[in-house]
Amino acid sequence: MSTQRIASADADDPTLEADVFARNCTSRPVLQNVASRWGTLALVALREGPYRFSALRRRVDGVSERMLSQTLQALERDGMVHREVQETIPPRVEYTLTNLGVEVADRLEALIRVLETNMPRVREAQAAYHRD
Amino acid sequence: MSTQRIASADADDPTLEADVFARNCTSRPVLQNVASRWGTLALVALREGPYRFSALRRRVDGVSERMLSQTLQALERDGMVHREVQETIPPRVEYTLTNLGVEVADRLEALIRVLETNMPRVREAQAAYHRD
Repeated sequence: MSTQRIASADADDPTLEADVFARNCTSRPVLQNVASRWGTLALVALREGPYRFSALRRRVDGVSERMLSQTLQALERDGMVHREVQETIPPRVEYTLTNLGVEVADRLEALIRVLETNMPRVREAQAAYHRD
Repeated sequence: MSTQRIASADADDPTLEADVFARNCTSRPVLQNVASRWGTLALVALREGPYRFSALRRRVDGVSERMLSQTLQALERDGMVHREVQETIPPRVEYTLTNLGVEVADRLEALIRVLETNMPRVREAQAAYHRD
């Protein structure tokens, strides 16, 4: 089956295997945005509650202003994050997860938890790999 | 708390918040390897069973030989994937998930499933974003 056929069939059939493994499928860039280095951390941070930009930037240690801004824009566009401008003086911009964002962030948090609790095994594997 | 202090505290305290949000933590590159574009697809593909390199490359549509090779190397080093050389003629190289790899791949598959089933909502959000 050609990639084109898989990709166009996917629009009507949103099952796992038909979709994400097809190179032209629209779900691939969405997966990449949420699973990106900063996308993952921003989504999991926002599970804690609403954040203003500068506070979120402090929470996601190491991210540049530009990268966090691009990341949040992509997450907003894909419907993961809601950006609200409150008409105070000065205006206050707050980011929150959408319902879909919560579902996605929960899965990312579960992934991170597995990695965190297994870091001793990862380190053992790394040591063995470099020993061989 | 400084980044250095968070990062060094993390080595002894593998909890979620202390670790992955600290820029120097050793878990960050591990997360990036499994959540990378090709890392995610390779791990989820390997849930289906063992794969030889060329078959896996066909399954993960669009990946180059070089990128798949680098991806598998990183996953093997981090203890997610086991690489076995069978002494046949010609030798046969097979990739399988380790127990840890299964746990990680299960979480990635859950993430992908959420995205797949919600692509209509994602497309609506994208349309609204570009309309505004």
